[in-house]
Amino acid sequence: MSKPSIPQGTRDFYGETLYKRNFILQTIKNVFELYGFQPLETPAMENLETLMGKYGDEGDKLIFKILNNGLADPKNIEKTKQGFKKILDGRNSEDISSRALKYDLTIPFARFVAMNYGQLNFPFKRYQVQPVWRADRPQKGRYREFTQCDADVVGSKSLINEIELAGIYHKAFNQLGLKEYALHINNRKILAGLAEICHAPDKMIDISIAIDKLDKIGLEKVKEELQQRGFENEQVSLVEKYLLIAGNNASRIESMKKIFANNETALKGIEELEFIITHCGSYNIIIDGTLARGLNYYTGIIFEAKAPANVKMGSIGGGGRYDDLTGSFGVPDIAGVGISFGVDRIYDVMDELDIFPAKMESGTTALFMNMGSDEALSTLKIMQVLREEGISCELYHEQAKMDKQFKYASKKNIRYAVIIGSREITEGKCSVKHLLTSSQEEILISELSSWFKKELRLPNNI
Amino acid sequence: MSKPSIPQGTRDFYGETLYKRNFILQTIKNVFELYGFQPLETPAMENLETLMGKYGDEGDKLIFKILNNGLADPKNIEKTKQGFKKILDGRNSEDISSRALKYDLTIPFARFVAMNYGQLNFPFKRYQVQPVWRADRPQKGRYREFTQCDADVVGSKSLINEIELAGIYHKAFNQLGLKEYALHINNRKILAGLAEICHAPDKMIDISIAIDKLDKIGLEKVKEELQQRGFENEQVSLVEKYLLIAGNNASRIESMKKIFANNETALKGIEELEFIITHCGSYNIIIDGTLARGLNYYTGIIFEAKAPANVKMGSIGGGGRYDDLTGSFGVPDIAGVGISFGVDRIYDVMDELDIFPAKMESGTTALFMNMGSDEALSTLKIMQVLREEGISCELYHEQAKMDKQFKYASKKNIRYAVIIGSREITEGKCSVKHLLTSSQEEILISELSSWFKKELRLPNNI
Repeated sequence: MSKPSIPQGTRDFYGETLYKRNFILQTIKNVFELYGFQPLETPAMENLETLMGKYGDEGDKLIFKILNNGLADPKNIEKTKQGFKKILDGRNSEDISSRALKYDLTIPFARFVAMNYGQLNFPFKRYQVQPVWRADRPQKGRYREFTQCDADVVGSKSLINEIELAGIYHKAFNQLGLKEYALHINNRKILAGLAEICHAPDKMIDISIAIDKLDKIGLEKVKEELQQRGFENEQVSLVEKYLLIAGNNASRIESMKKIFANNETALKGIEELEFIITHCGSYNIIIDGTLARGLNYYTGIIFEAKAPANVKMGSIGGGGRYDDLTGSFGVPDIAGVGISFGVDRIYDVMDELDIFPAKMESGTTALFMNMGSDEALSTLKIMQVLREEGISCELYHEQAKMDKQFKYASKKNIRYAVIIGSREITEGKCSVKHLLTSSQEEILISELSSWFKKELRLPNNI
Repeated sequence: MSKPSIPQGTRDFYGETLYKRNFILQTIKNVFELYGFQPLETPAMENLETLMGKYGDEGDKLIFKILNNGLADPKNIEKTKQGFKKILDGRNSEDISSRALKYDLTIPFARFVAMNYGQLNFPFKRYQVQPVWRADRPQKGRYREFTQCDADVVGSKSLINEIELAGIYHKAFNQLGLKEYALHINNRKILAGLAEICHAPDKMIDISIAIDKLDKIGLEKVKEELQQRGFENEQVSLVEKYLLIAGNNASRIESMKKIFANNETALKGIEELEFIITHCGSYNIIIDGTLARGLNYYTGIIFEAKAPANVKMGSIGGGGRYDDLTGSFGVPDIAGVGISFGVDRIYDVMDELDIFPAKMESGTTALFMNMGSDEALSTLKIMQVLREEGISCELYHEQAKMDKQFKYASKKNIRYAVIIGSREITEGKCSVKHLLTSSQEEILISELSSWFKKELRLPNNI
């Protein structure tokens, strides 16, 4: 039998890693709820037709498809053969696979909104924290199963939503200890205006793609790329002028206003940016004309959250406004705005900065030492009293050398060992050993749970 | 475009349903942690070879297999063709599908333990709450994607684990409000002993399968089934005598001891049962000789938790002890014991008994009414103060008729509306309307968050 393994690009989570991940996810979920967002969970599987054609040709290839069952059943076998032919031609066949694993949370959310349109309370604010699957080539930081963490408001065009979403980033990053995050914002309307003043209104995407690379390849290469894409010198220098905008947010706004003095589209976008920064005063917002975001469906404000500059990690979140969430599902004109948190990246940043709260490694507060079967059994009732008070505890499963039992506690990061031998039972006392300091004290068994309650509220005491 | 839909047997969860589900899951998880169990999450996908052959022929057919990507790539096409032939013959082909969705939590747990054997701290106590997938025919209460909720201790033969697991059932069901649950227990050793005293030690499974049907088909039919399976009259009357054991737990133990007076296997099992009931005094335990549990891998104590008798729902959990978790993954002699909670069943029971805590429908405590754009913007800062105190709130996204805004609050089960118009801003006051009673009071804006803190600690006040 070969050594057991898990699929490439997937992970088991347990112990300290899982506690830390859950700390991040729970912090973000709590903030979503504080802002009035409600949870949604959609199935892992979607019908294939729900997903296909939504992510471009490259995306479609990365969707994990699920094999239909009963392919070799006599009643299905002819269809199966036909289906196999299609697959060999590089096409899909619903006779072979009619379901797939979800590729992101946005399309399932759109499918949900379209299906339940009549029942939902608009503006509908949902958050969703679930795994998604992509058949990408696994590499450092890129997984085939990973958790997305999204919040969207749909059915509202008000910029108040953008302000609130920026507030969510601010509150969540602060609670996680990432106070030095930066939220870059821009507006797709300004990029559309840029294409317009270049007299190439149909080339907004071309410009965006080139601009998006500025960080990686630098200004000269971006200019070259624009030239290769057929832009004239005059157009390229307009883009350059735009990319060279610098200074604080107020002066960036001023520079933008000058460049786009006669372009209504961009001026509307600038006005929106101005509105956002006015009402997000205390958030770490940077107006960033070079921010483009790849996804074509954005039409207004776009966001990208970046890790503190002392960590070379880049984007830890992003999002933006869109005009049409559900058009492809037959429900037109649902506008909205959403953000997402990059959970794996945030984990890596917090790990590098070493800012996870201490002592989140174990669920168990106290290990009751096993001093013999009679003594052990009498501790079971004592543990119940502690658990009534929310103090997690366990009994070592068998009488073993003390060393072995302490080692178990230490490996599990348990902070206290409680020793109740026959002498202690007679005297109604027990010994509690602090496993970090090795100090020990004697406590009345009847007062053990109140002792722990006091102790746990004062974690700096030990 | 056809109307969007989700795959048969899968569900979207949101709103009240999801809050209620999460209440159940969170309650159970908290109890697991109180008992020193630590969370584990394994991927949705496992390698096909990890799963195949573990669930019997019928189970294998219900595994959802994932299609490999790139089947039509020139470098793969020959293998793909060969693979299709195998599939048409009713076999599996790793060239077509090398991964599958997990079918339960036990096999992935076993795979995890085998993979990480050297690193784990034994006895290893893990809990796992994750979805699993089965290509079963969907029907009422049976889904293709559903959540399992398991806790296991492995690497220990001590019966203390059984006592603690019974304690987990007791505490969790009590916290959920299902105080009238019953925990039926039996021991596979007694069933083995029964086969032995019938002089058919190899027929323990046959006897178990027949006994398992007692509830549904009655004693006479069970006897008929045993006869059909080749049991002699004398054997059948021994089984009958065993099945007719009644009375309280103590007298059941006595009756069992008489029947199995000369059978060591069963006597060992009875002794274990006696030990458990002695130390689980306050739990609702019923010794039930007719309990067999289908899964072959159980070898000791077996559990089945039943819903309160006034709800016709039957089993809401089950589990038992096994000798060999990881043998099929090359790591022998890992004994353990585990339990699971039937989350969907528990939900239905609690819904029928109407015992979910009130007011768990919404995350939002207060809706700030939108009285115009200037007023609205000045509420944003007030909301931040409330959120600092953990009070969830949101601003209606646009100025609209009050009726429309109240309707939004009502649909979202929001309990308070806060009204801050221009007069209120000037006076530093706001009006808070209780949306359940329609009573209204005026509060200083500076005192709003302390007012809410007081109000929310006294939920019976309204």
